[in-house]
Amino acid sequence: MSTWAEWFAEQRAGREDAGLQRALRPRAADEDVIDLANNDYLGLSCHPEVRRAAADAALRWGAGAGASRLVTGTTTLHAELERELAEFTDHEAALVFSTGYHANLSAVTALADKQSLIVSDAHVHASLIDAARLSRAAIEVVPHNDVAAVRAALAGAGGRRALVLTESVFSVLGDAAPLPDLAEVCADHDALLVVDEAHGLGVVGEGGRGSVHANGMAGDPHVVMTATLSKSLGAMGGAVLGSAALVDHLVNRARPFIFDTGLAPAPTAAALTALSCLRRQPARPSQIHQRGGELADRLGVPRSAGAVLSVPMPSPQVAIAAQAAALAEGVRVGCFRPPSVPDGISRLRITTHVGLDDDRWEHAVDVLTHVVKDHRGSP
Amino acid sequence: MSTWAEWFAEQRAGREDAGLQRALRPRAADEDVIDLANNDYLGLSCHPEVRRAAADAALRWGAGAGASRLVTGTTTLHAELERELAEFTDHEAALVFSTGYHANLSAVTALADKQSLIVSDAHVHASLIDAARLSRAAIEVVPHNDVAAVRAALAGAGGRRALVLTESVFSVLGDAAPLPDLAEVCADHDALLVVDEAHGLGVVGEGGRGSVHANGMAGDPHVVMTATLSKSLGAMGGAVLGSAALVDHLVNRARPFIFDTGLAPAPTAAALTALSCLRRQPARPSQIHQRGGELADRLGVPRSAGAVLSVPMPSPQVAIAAQAAALAEGVRVGCFRPPSVPDGISRLRITTHVGLDDDRWEHAVDVLTHVVKDHRGSP
Ligand SMILES: Cc1ncc(COP(=O)(O)O)c(C=O)c1O
Ligand SMILES: Cc1ncc(COP(=O)(O)O)c(C=O)c1O
Repeated sequence: MSTWAEWFAEQRAGREDAGLQRALRPRAADEDVIDLANNDYLGLSCHPEVRRAAADAALRWGAGAGASRLVTGTTTLHAELERELAEFTDHEAALVFSTGYHANLSAVTALADKQSLIVSDAHVHASLIDAARLSRAAIEVVPHNDVAAVRAALAGAGGRRALVLTESVFSVLGDAAPLPDLAEVCADHDALLVVDEAHGLGVVGEGGRGSVHANGMAGDPHVVMTATLSKSLGAMGGAVLGSAALVDHLVNRARPFIFDTGLAPAPTAAALTALSCLRRQPARPSQIHQRGGELADRLGVPRSAGAVLSVPMPSPQVAIAAQAAALAEGVRVGCFRPPSVPDGISRLRITTHVGLDDDRWEHAVDVLTHVVKDHRGSP
Repeated sequence: MSTWAEWFAEQRAGREDAGLQRALRPRAADEDVIDLANNDYLGLSCHPEVRRAAADAALRWGAGAGASRLVTGTTTLHAELERELAEFTDHEAALVFSTGYHANLSAVTALADKQSLIVSDAHVHASLIDAARLSRAAIEVVPHNDVAAVRAALAGAGGRRALVLTESVFSVLGDAAPLPDLAEVCADHDALLVVDEAHGLGVVGEGGRGSVHANGMAGDPHVVMTATLSKSLGAMGGAVLGSAALVDHLVNRARPFIFDTGLAPAPTAAALTALSCLRRQPARPSQIHQRGGELADRLGVPRSAGAVLSVPMPSPQVAIAAQAAALAEGVRVGCFRPPSVPDGISRLRITTHVGLDDDRWEHAVDVLTHVVKDHRGSP
């Protein structure tokens, strides 16, 4: 046995002892499950127009972009999606990436380098953490949503270019960042605030335009918005939104953009059509808050700023048992354990869906209410 | 003007002075161009079966995977593609990622950490360079294809777990790595050889099974293969191939896998069908070497180990002029300038395509022969 095989075995044994070993469980196309684990909050992934647009794009353009965006992987579809995203969120320009992860890696690494300071909220997503590391900037992690700590960190920047990283709606806890205060602090120190709207776009604000827009911060020269096309838009991919100069900079400097094949035609077209569905149903996002608020009250957990409800559980094992119990009754929810939780606490992660009809939603609420009660009862 | 806006302007001016400013040029679906800039060597992106498979998958499964692979983003399509990729390349297991970039980031960061040593060929792709940085391992960059330097670096590992990073066919120069020698050195030192087959899969070896397979290295416990689904397979995405224990390790530890939405159904199905097309036409990849060899001879450049021909040009400006001249005659080629070249030399990058009929291919060869002659003539 090579020492590598031994090492894999040791690592796995350690995970098993800690209750943290995970495995992939493929789902079938025709499964009869109410899926409240995914991030397709508006149900757009399976919207007939969106599916059709994805299919037509594959037929018309082929299955792949063929090369990196700068070589020959940019189609008029990409350009149209970028125009629409920018217009929808009220930014001067947008740039589309093959994943939201690439969008975050690109924004941060193209804006910060060894001479920079990055001030990062303690709860930001893995992609922003990796982005900060990859940039080689000095990194200061500040307590979650602590504006005073951000201010203090920026005060120590000493002339370095500085970025502040946050999320509009945090991906696991579902709470909101204090965006206006952060933007003010950033403007005071000429720092850039990078706001990841992965869980804000399509969910928060007028018509789902996101938190940056809702707070009147779109177009603020000290704010950069990143987003995914893989959640409320039901497709795949990511985007960065800001000034035309920012986008030009990313096109020329962001390695995870320059050296990556362009987003395939099908998800590009799907995101474009999902955006147009969203525009035609501007009241849909607000239903997320209604339904989610009721569910939170039933479960006795804080309401979410977006679609993500977080239900802390006494242990990873109990969290898994609760997840299995819900699935046995036809409702899938997420189970987040270390290292996928910002605070080390295992939890159910339940997303509010407005693509379901009232009956199915009510059924899911009933199932979750008693499953959570049964499992959280006595630790 | 914020200092950020000033900084963007300064950076752009610097790029313009150096002839390195780049912009996206969207292409239309119906453009009449022979595209030798993309990496769709076998023409599978536009193969009728592949397009149809992508379209059907979008209609059947929806536009997106909905969540990360570990949450609910794994479909039976992903599992099938993983089985097929593993079987085709003769590995025990495979794991699919949303981009080839994610595959490389994941493999390296899950296998190396602060206590590790990474020995990296000087010409490896940006995704492997970023992966090495992100892992926080000690990095030793060795001269291109220098096996003795790899051996010396590993001799200094002093008990650290060590990875060696290379590509089977290098993405810009099109030359091959000395895989058997590298594998031997790695076995001697119990290091893992990570071979990026982005430009090897579908191109090199029996039926396009890649260089790892061609060299009898599939299943070697000291070899890990990475690949993209975005090049010869015509779709989008990436893969890591190796032992089941390796894949289990990545599923549990690779952040760019765990925290990223799964590959969308359309490109997943497209890659699966492209693989089956490849299996049914096992002689196709060898045509790449025939056509490419003839073109290389006509252009007076070294033959490629794969589909990538590299034509050095006297300056970035001349490279751009040559690219424009070819495009004016209906042939698109890549123009690679710093920072996208490993040696600082601007060049045309021309890919061999076997999806074109003989007439179109011959026409392209004629155009390129005189364009290159006109532009390389006197520096
Ligand atoms: C906050 C946040 N940012 C970025 C991402 C990455 O987006 P993607 O899955 O499109 O790569 C995710 C989720 O996956 C996320 O939750
Ligand atoms: C050698 C090599 N590795 C990895 C990648 C990344 O693959 P992808 O474009 O699928 O992200 C590329 C090209 O883009 C490449 O040329």
